[in-house]
Amino acid sequence: MQLLNKHVTIRKFSSQVIPDKIIEEIVFSGTRASTTGNMQLYSVIITKEQKNIRTLAAYHFNQSVALNAPVLLTVVADFNRFSLWCKYSDADPGYDNFLSFFTSAIDAMLFAQNICIAAENKGLGICYLGTTTYNAREIIDFLKIPRLCFPVTTIALGYPDEIPPLTDRLPFKSIIHNEFYEGYTFEKIKEIYQEKENLDDSRKYILENNKESLAQVFTDIRYTRKDNEFFSKKMIATLRDQGFPV
Amino acid sequence: MQLLNKHVTIRKFSSQVIPDKIIEEIVFSGTRASTTGNMQLYSVIITKEQKNIRTLAAYHFNQSVALNAPVLLTVVADFNRFSLWCKYSDADPGYDNFLSFFTSAIDAMLFAQNICIAAENKGLGICYLGTTTYNAREIIDFLKIPRLCFPVTTIALGYPDEIPPLTDRLPFKSIIHNEFYEGYTFEKIKEIYQEKENLDDSRKYILENNKESLAQVFTDIRYTRKDNEFFSKKMIATLRDQGFPV
Repeated sequence: MQLLNKHVTIRKFSSQVIPDKIIEEIVFSGTRASTTGNMQLYSVIITKEQKNIRTLAAYHFNQSVALNAPVLLTVVADFNRFSLWCKYSDADPGYDNFLSFFTSAIDAMLFAQNICIAAENKGLGICYLGTTTYNAREIIDFLKIPRLCFPVTTIALGYPDEIPPLTDRLPFKSIIHNEFYEGYTFEKIKEIYQEKENLDDSRKYILENNKESLAQVFTDIRYTRKDNEFFSKKMIATLRDQGFPV
Repeated sequence: MQLLNKHVTIRKFSSQVIPDKIIEEIVFSGTRASTTGNMQLYSVIITKEQKNIRTLAAYHFNQSVALNAPVLLTVVADFNRFSLWCKYSDADPGYDNFLSFFTSAIDAMLFAQNICIAAENKGLGICYLGTTTYNAREIIDFLKIPRLCFPVTTIALGYPDEIPPLTDRLPFKSIIHNEFYEGYTFEKIKEIYQEKENLDDSRKYILENNKESLAQVFTDIRYTRKDNEFFSKKMIATLRDQGFPV
């Protein structure tokens, strides 16, 4: 509980090497997570070689956390292994469809989160790279990821070289709904986001980006409609290519 | 680490009531999970009323674990709250697209897994209901879930009334790939799945279902092509209706 509640994302890593044994232990904890029908619809690709990290980092828009991580873990939703087992067992695997993709994505995310918690328990720091889905096409080609597989996230892993403060969160009761989804009035939204809007960092982002509100920093700079629509099309096309038609 | 490694799914719950304070504490731990751009793209709907549990359980095919759980937590990928905040802050939210849906689904799964780990740390037992995506349409209607939201999973929650043994897993090294996806030969697949195929339970399932292999139990009975394709179409249509075109 303490471990979960004190989680902070680490973006600066020391040069300390992560022993293979530690990586194996945290991946093992990943495999103990819940998984649909005990099918274990995930794989992890471990990148430690510098030249491979540099190539992958480019697909993550050369974020410094990706470039400087001693290890990148690409977490893959994987229906390939299970489908091969079916084929080799005189069974017809019917998993080349959207529901199966999403089922394997759920499995992969639970696996990933267990890995992260186990890593933090071992004194490591982690950063999720959400950019994996943006450039899944290039990551698939580079990492030789086969059909019926799709990389859903990447974990940058290393020993922390910074101690960041806890990040802000919305009042936790604002994400809870009792019995039915309760809806958010204008007043409720203003109340929920007030603390975030008043943070020194938020005011800084608004000024730096010459915007009128923190929300505009998100919609106009960080997560724009244009980017989202472009990468949606790309992701859907890549899903099709991987055997998951949508 | 111990907590992660000893996880077992609980399908029988005692009649002991879960104090609200405990539910709040575990949801709080959920909100400490990593989240894309600190947007917290999730909500949880807590179902405690018996008549609502019965209605929801029907959408989960009346699995006894759903019917008998004292609490159901429906975990929702939620871009509604964030988009409202944008609208109310003179910003144009561009999150009605597939990438944004998937981003919120990732956020929601990390949130869900933290809740489950915190729950187990408090002595509770959990079972993920993968059927949420099958009948998302009906769950959305019943729980009054708005546009730009999608229920991705459900957690059945209660104090355990059973002590199941650890379930089997594939040899953990078989899901690890070094530097590149390594592929699986026929021999490798046979080796990886050997232990699972030889379990007493596996032999029992094959006999009970009059099948020739364990894989056929999965493809012909548990997760069939016909069902997967039917529920894929339904999920894609529901995503569109929720404002996430694919």
